[in-house]
Amino acid sequence: MLPELGIEKYAKYFMSTLTTRQQDYSQWYNDLILKGGLADYSSVRGCMVIKPYGFALWENMRDQLDRMFKETGHQNAYFPLFVPKSLFEAEEKNAEGFAKECAVVTHYRLKADPSKKGKLIVDPAAKLEEELVVRPTSEAIIWNTYKGWIQSYRDLPILINQWANVVRWEMRTRLFLRTAEFLWQEGHTAHATKEEALAETVKMLDVYAHFVEEFMALPVVKGVKTANERFAGAEDTYCIEALMQDGKALQAGTSHFLGQNFAKAFDVKFAAKDNSMEYVWATSWGVSTRLIGALVMAHSDDQGLVLPPRIAPLQVVIVPIYNKDAIAREKIDKKAAELVQALKEKGIRVQFDNDDSTRPGWKFAEHELRGVPIRIALGARDLENNQVEIARRDTKEKSQHSLDGLLDHVSFLLTDIQQNLFNRASQFRAEMTNEANNWDEFVKLLDEKGGFISAHWDGSPETEEKIKELTKATIRCIPIDNKPEAGKCILTGMPSSQRVLFARAY
Amino acid sequence: MLPELGIEKYAKYFMSTLTTRQQDYSQWYNDLILKGGLADYSSVRGCMVIKPYGFALWENMRDQLDRMFKETGHQNAYFPLFVPKSLFEAEEKNAEGFAKECAVVTHYRLKADPSKKGKLIVDPAAKLEEELVVRPTSEAIIWNTYKGWIQSYRDLPILINQWANVVRWEMRTRLFLRTAEFLWQEGHTAHATKEEALAETVKMLDVYAHFVEEFMALPVVKGVKTANERFAGAEDTYCIEALMQDGKALQAGTSHFLGQNFAKAFDVKFAAKDNSMEYVWATSWGVSTRLIGALVMAHSDDQGLVLPPRIAPLQVVIVPIYNKDAIAREKIDKKAAELVQALKEKGIRVQFDNDDSTRPGWKFAEHELRGVPIRIALGARDLENNQVEIARRDTKEKSQHSLDGLLDHVSFLLTDIQQNLFNRASQFRAEMTNEANNWDEFVKLLDEKGGFISAHWDGSPETEEKIKELTKATIRCIPIDNKPEAGKCILTGMPSSQRVLFARAY
Repeated sequence: MLPELGIEKYAKYFMSTLTTRQQDYSQWYNDLILKGGLADYSSVRGCMVIKPYGFALWENMRDQLDRMFKETGHQNAYFPLFVPKSLFEAEEKNAEGFAKECAVVTHYRLKADPSKKGKLIVDPAAKLEEELVVRPTSEAIIWNTYKGWIQSYRDLPILINQWANVVRWEMRTRLFLRTAEFLWQEGHTAHATKEEALAETVKMLDVYAHFVEEFMALPVVKGVKTANERFAGAEDTYCIEALMQDGKALQAGTSHFLGQNFAKAFDVKFAAKDNSMEYVWATSWGVSTRLIGALVMAHSDDQGLVLPPRIAPLQVVIVPIYNKDAIAREKIDKKAAELVQALKEKGIRVQFDNDDSTRPGWKFAEHELRGVPIRIALGARDLENNQVEIARRDTKEKSQHSLDGLLDHVSFLLTDIQQNLFNRASQFRAEMTNEANNWDEFVKLLDEKGGFISAHWDGSPETEEKIKELTKATIRCIPIDNKPEAGKCILTGMPSSQRVLFARAY
Repeated sequence: MLPELGIEKYAKYFMSTLTTRQQDYSQWYNDLILKGGLADYSSVRGCMVIKPYGFALWENMRDQLDRMFKETGHQNAYFPLFVPKSLFEAEEKNAEGFAKECAVVTHYRLKADPSKKGKLIVDPAAKLEEELVVRPTSEAIIWNTYKGWIQSYRDLPILINQWANVVRWEMRTRLFLRTAEFLWQEGHTAHATKEEALAETVKMLDVYAHFVEEFMALPVVKGVKTANERFAGAEDTYCIEALMQDGKALQAGTSHFLGQNFAKAFDVKFAAKDNSMEYVWATSWGVSTRLIGALVMAHSDDQGLVLPPRIAPLQVVIVPIYNKDAIAREKIDKKAAELVQALKEKGIRVQFDNDDSTRPGWKFAEHELRGVPIRIALGARDLENNQVEIARRDTKEKSQHSLDGLLDHVSFLLTDIQQNLFNRASQFRAEMTNEANNWDEFVKLLDEKGGFISAHWDGSPETEEKIKELTKATIRCIPIDNKPEAGKCILTGMPSSQRVLFARAY
């Protein structure tokens, strides 16, 4: 899992300084992604290249989620990339929701361009009889398959997950947050009863919330989307919402109760115990590489990425401070090798950065930029004193620590950094979650502070739309743990029975 | 990793018997894939669905390969699914090789069909300026990216691997062996010198050979392809070739030395230590879900799949033999739970199949069909005698074994089965590898026996092509460990300095 140095020499990144959050939040984000080595632009419109460091981060997230899916009884499978148009259009709302942004394969061959040597053109003779949509989501292809797998209640439940790439032709793209192609997982389950499907929807929302909070150190609000914001084809969309440092919200994962919509569209019925034929109940749920965008925006600072230890590709980096004494150098290398070995045995992802072509100062800046949680500096004088210098990325505190008991201290620090990041983000969110009781308060909060705004809404899609039009704020969710409270809609003054959570969002 | 039962009740498979190898080898193969639960046909032409059991097998193979790639210094990354046509055509031979079979995206939107309510049509207003090819392989998109990453020798080597789906519009498809979309890994490395790139090519061939022999229990011949059989755009293609039970060969993996072809096509140069600007040297190497087809064809028998323990999704299944005594049943369940726990602690993938809806006999047949290496049957009488019945899938031998020392015995058996499968396949291959010294011998061997035929060839592409035309046999490879030997070409009688390996192939 440990990325080796050497692909790029990072020092060149420091030729240009990073943009600060204050200067330009959006550019700061791009700088961190690009200069931190997570991703790169590609020559394909709206698509990015996930670089090794970014992919190692994704692998850690993916592997942990995969374990959690398997622990909750799910299996992985793989379904085709392409969806024939006739299947794609079968569930009307779903089709309508994605038709505007899908890549369509129309031909299966290129041929030599007769007018330009060495160039190719699409072969008009190789036109497909039926166009193929590159999956924007896989309900259609999967439910068409489930039809063949489900006859009786004995065949249920089906609890399948797929790790895949999907394509949505977004007009405005941003690295990780919104790309034409992205990587994700999509769970697709089939159940005999509505209750069971609903329970699955909530269970997977809980899995997501647990993952994002415990591993990404990012507190989330669990809630239900309004009808306007529902997944196309769902009866209900559950979501987790997180808050970024600029006060904007980000939807970090969704879990959909699909009712019998797809079963009806694809005619998937099962024989119940009483031999009656019934439509199957469905859920789907997904998170994507977008989570990496959330991670960066939530924790990082003006010096670079800040990665939570539990998913950081590299948890500890050891930087040697050589002087001109070759014997001292040997001692440092020997001690560093021992440390690396001992840390690895504890399951800690560590690297000894003994690259001779850059100075310790450059290395410090590099590893800060890349968000390595703990940096250990090791010099001749440290060794003489049986100690090292430890710097933690989250607080930038430096301290001396004895080589005795160092392993336990590093373990403690990794846990402490993880907890500190979560606490910091929670505190920020608490400060940035406010109530508005009328329109003026609402607009003032939005414009001057941002964050989550808890306010009354009359429950109508038209009001919701109007508020969005006027302020660009959307209802992020109706929180699951909401308490009933009588009030008046901030826009219309109509009666409302509970507050909902508004924010401007990514 | 353990697939749970329940998605399908397998008993229904036994409603129809399996085809035997003797009756129809090709149908036998399809039966095993479909009824063994590895994959299913899909409604997309030439594409298949990989079912949970098949995907669990792929995960075991993928994870092991991934470990081996990382141990040899490679990192994973992810590049776009789409290749703009202008990049696709940049390396001419590569483009020519894949142009005839590529899926092409021409539009990015569907719209409502004005003439048919609820139907969609491609929106002619959403035509792409430049068509996008769905990657059949990623050299083009990756080398276009590497151009931005490589300036000096300090940026080299780049050792990157990608796990991805690719699409090749094959006209005749077969489950796993040849599908329009398949899953694979593709390594793409960049080097400062020819020697280093050549060493990498051979190193990865060795990794593949090691994996296929040690984990898939399948002996391979390592060799070099002739010019006719080379990867489009390569200077040299190294391969591993395996032999199936019907005497046909199957290419199990390839590692390409790409020379400077892609560096030249994409203008990727680096400043060497002496400041001269030089083109970068490249390799690429890949194996795919095709390996699952090889696995099935190499080891399975007329009762079903036979899976090597090291990659089998399930290594041990415990089947309880209940009688009507409820107390005895409880004792069986308790002992089985203990066994499952103890086996899991040893890292063994085990399942207790206590499904009440099928009888032990059905279960035995099911687990044989699915190729579970070891079956343990546990009845009341066994328990009284402190023993179990063990059946091994490879030899179908049954034996009683004491519950004392059972864990060690199971570990031993798993190793022994793995070794036995390899030995069996090696012996088969030895018997099926023969020399032919003239045309008549060659044709007779091919038609009556099949297998690998070691014979002299004059080295000309024309002769190779002619032999293929006449016999459907191709040169699988020039084995790496070949010894020089003077002889005469079996077709032309022209002089030859070494034998090459012919076979009919998948």
